Amino acid sequence: MGDGGPGLTRLDADECWALLGHGHVGRIALEDEDTIVIVPVNYAVDGTVVVFRTQEENLLGRAASWGRRVAFQVDHLDPDAHTGWTVLARGELRRADEQETERLAALVSPWAGGERPVVGRIVVARIDGRRVGPS
Amino acid sequence: MGDGGPGLTRLDADECWALLGHGHVGRIALEDEDTIVIVPVNYAVDGTVVVFRTQEENLLGRAASWGRRVAFQVDHLDPDAHTGWTVLARGELRRADEQETERLAALVSPWAGGERPVVGRIVVARIDGRRVGPS
Repeated sequence: MGDGGPGLTRLDADECWALLGHGHVGRIALEDEDTIVIVPVNYAVDGTVVVFRTQEENLLGRAASWGRRVAFQVDHLDPDAHTGWTVLARGELRRADEQETERLAALVSPWAGGERPVVGRIVVARIDGRRVGPS
Repeated sequence: MGDGGPGLTRLDADECWALLGHGHVGRIALEDEDTIVIVPVNYAVDGTVVVFRTQEENLLGRAASWGRRVAFQVDHLDPDAHTGWTVLARGELRRADEQETERLAALVSPWAGGERPVVGRIVVARIDGRRVGPS
């Protein structure tokens, strides 16, 4: 795999959104002080916004309150067949406002349990994807 | 899921390394100009170094030549059972030198095919992990 070269086929934006729309688990990358962190989340797609739930005091909850640039990635990779795809969405993470929170929270059922009252919205500014496998 | 709270159990460093050692595919996050990028790679572990192969002119190849702080994440998540684990390793990405390249390249067989002569080494400075599921 990797980020370019033979065996990788670019996906157009419609293909990327179709693949994102069928996924359940993605990964958010963001800066945290002087390092980068990758956190898996279960998510839903609302138009061109990625929606997930978290807690007020978490890294993601704090980042959503501040508004932060993030990357969101979903893939499906078959280690036996050496085939699959990866989609990368980049944009700004924001906390849903009170009006939106109830509707958006209903789209996502957090796995880990507990109260996850904060709804994070990643407003996607750019989406890219690649299919991996024999070309 | 998410990054804290109920239903998440911290893993110690030995558990994290054991899980990393059994994986095949991970994801590298790094800065690229004013955004963050997440790239899946197949990888191997050599001591406390994560090893992967890439191309000279790729984002990862260029980043390895410069030396860049990166995050590397591996997870196994079951969308039906809502259980799984995630491990996050943080450190610096460096290109393997000529002496090491042959030995390290033999540890990893790139999926996407083509020449992938550059061996990237992530020297892990910090490792964290969490198990997701009913506590």
